Amino acid sequence: MAGEFDLINKYFTHQQVTRSDVALSQGDDCALLVAPANTHIAVSTDSLIAGTHFLEHANPQWVGHKALASNISDLAAMGAEPAWVSMAITLPSPDDDWLEGFCKGFFELANAHDLQLIGGDTTRGPLGITLTVQGFVPQGKALLRSGAKVGDKVFVSGYLGDSHAGLEVILQPSKQQQPHASELERRHYCASSRVALGILLRGQASSCIDISDGLVSDIQHIMQGSNVGAKLHCDKLPVSSELIEFTQGKRIAQQYALKSGEEYELCFTLPSHLVESVHQAARQQNLMITEIGEITDSQRLSLFDNGQAIENEMLGFDHFRS
Amino acid sequence: MAGEFDLINKYFTHQQVTRSDVALSQGDDCALLVAPANTHIAVSTDSLIAGTHFLEHANPQWVGHKALASNISDLAAMGAEPAWVSMAITLPSPDDDWLEGFCKGFFELANAHDLQLIGGDTTRGPLGITLTVQGFVPQGKALLRSGAKVGDKVFVSGYLGDSHAGLEVILQPSKQQQPHASELERRHYCASSRVALGILLRGQASSCIDISDGLVSDIQHIMQGSNVGAKLHCDKLPVSSELIEFTQGKRIAQQYALKSGEEYELCFTLPSHLVESVHQAARQQNLMITEIGEITDSQRLSLFDNGQAIENEMLGFDHFRS
Repeated sequence: MAGEFDLINKYFTHQQVTRSDVALSQGDDCALLVAPANTHIAVSTDSLIAGTHFLEHANPQWVGHKALASNISDLAAMGAEPAWVSMAITLPSPDDDWLEGFCKGFFELANAHDLQLIGGDTTRGPLGITLTVQGFVPQGKALLRSGAKVGDKVFVSGYLGDSHAGLEVILQPSKQQQPHASELERRHYCASSRVALGILLRGQASSCIDISDGLVSDIQHIMQGSNVGAKLHCDKLPVSSELIEFTQGKRIAQQYALKSGEEYELCFTLPSHLVESVHQAARQQNLMITEIGEITDSQRLSLFDNGQAIENEMLGFDHFRS
Repeated sequence: MAGEFDLINKYFTHQQVTRSDVALSQGDDCALLVAPANTHIAVSTDSLIAGTHFLEHANPQWVGHKALASNISDLAAMGAEPAWVSMAITLPSPDDDWLEGFCKGFFELANAHDLQLIGGDTTRGPLGITLTVQGFVPQGKALLRSGAKVGDKVFVSGYLGDSHAGLEVILQPSKQQQPHASELERRHYCASSRVALGILLRGQASSCIDISDGLVSDIQHIMQGSNVGAKLHCDKLPVSSELIEFTQGKRIAQQYALKSGEEYELCFTLPSHLVESVHQAARQQNLMITEIGEITDSQRLSLFDNGQAIENEMLGFDHFRS
């Protein structure tokens, strides 16, 4: 069986990205890095654990993508530009096929974002991946959860709900017969990372978060952070045509959109006077954003469907909620 | 059962250390940090997995200490000063007693090193902890593995071998009757972190590594990095009186010292002309260092005992070596 050092040499040292701010990468006790002046370093850590966040037999290329995408998404939500990533990977045994697939998904996404793997740890144990990503944002320009003001408009990027449908396909074999099941399963693992949108929103959005626990849960983090309420119009939630066919109706698709976790789309708020210019800037970069509600002074979340108040009994995903 | 957010609030937000270079800590998508000018940021990631690196029923306070000590040790080996740490913790279920003990061990050590917890992730799954620590070292002053020169003297800090004896006590119930068994078990988990020594060695040591895989294995990382050989005098290896009583003899204790992993002592090389001044500086700070050999041009590792060459069949610990 190959040793730890062989594994690292074989899979984790052949990346295309070589950044000038990495003075020393893998191969010593620490990496040595140089941060640019006048920036904040944004840091986020996320774990993907087999059995909790993905099934052991999931396509390893998708797992590699998802592990990194969920981390990059946190940088995007702060308006930060990705730079460095550290990887801790725990494997029951060295599995060449799995590692090759995993690294393909991981490095394709890392290369696309000029993100350099700077080191990590390879250990034996139950399958899991923990990544720590770091990026840069000019000081004072980071998008926080705490700046939403009453009257601001609430927006989301992309389409919501596909990830939840994909999870159903994974967990309920009967759903594999429904339209677009395979594509929705792929989307569950292979979410986009909204880095360009996060950068566009610097100095514009009054608050921002990535949708990892589900819209209903994540908008409440903005509400708590900003000490405000929010009103969401469920009939405005953007859903893909594939999801509508899968759920056999737009209304059900929009219920998926409300609760779907691990979407990695951004939810953000904009002062009214910036709505038009941000719409225009997003169109120019071909970034889809949709207005879905507004910030209120009520301290609570109100859901509406075609102007009618509806009950909110859907909660976000919490790993330790029983 | 408490939710993820409750857990984080209860255990991971009550630290004493608040650093001025942390602009934003836990509670948003990312932490925001400011690195000092003209420094390198040193970054290291290490995982501790239950069943691989510690037993599930191990004292959680010791596990908390060990998880952080092994990471701080990588900073020490580069001559870096600890600053920030991110924690990913995976738990089968939220266990208040375990978390309370773990946090006690973790934060005591973090506080002692002015190290601030800046964020992380709490997930459900098999017990494991992955930490990413960051620290600072002036540019050009980091201690690398690659600078050892022929004729340099080889040193280690502290005593070696206790960790291996402690591991035997943990894994072999019969050893629990031997002298100092409990104390050696404690030392296996509660190694010191040689940060002060690493800082003292900046601009002095020609190479440095922390002993995590075992002296025989780790000195070979210096040899490979520096393209040199080394000669070690086993009779000079520093061993504690407790270990000598445990092994019933100094020679056996020194065999433990050769192969003992997870020691987190430093192994470093010094040019001859610096040996006396570094000895003196170390004494002033009450830091124990011992000369154990020298760098050679042979490209191989030679072991000697009282001047006699001995066989080297002991290899370091490799998580994936079968």
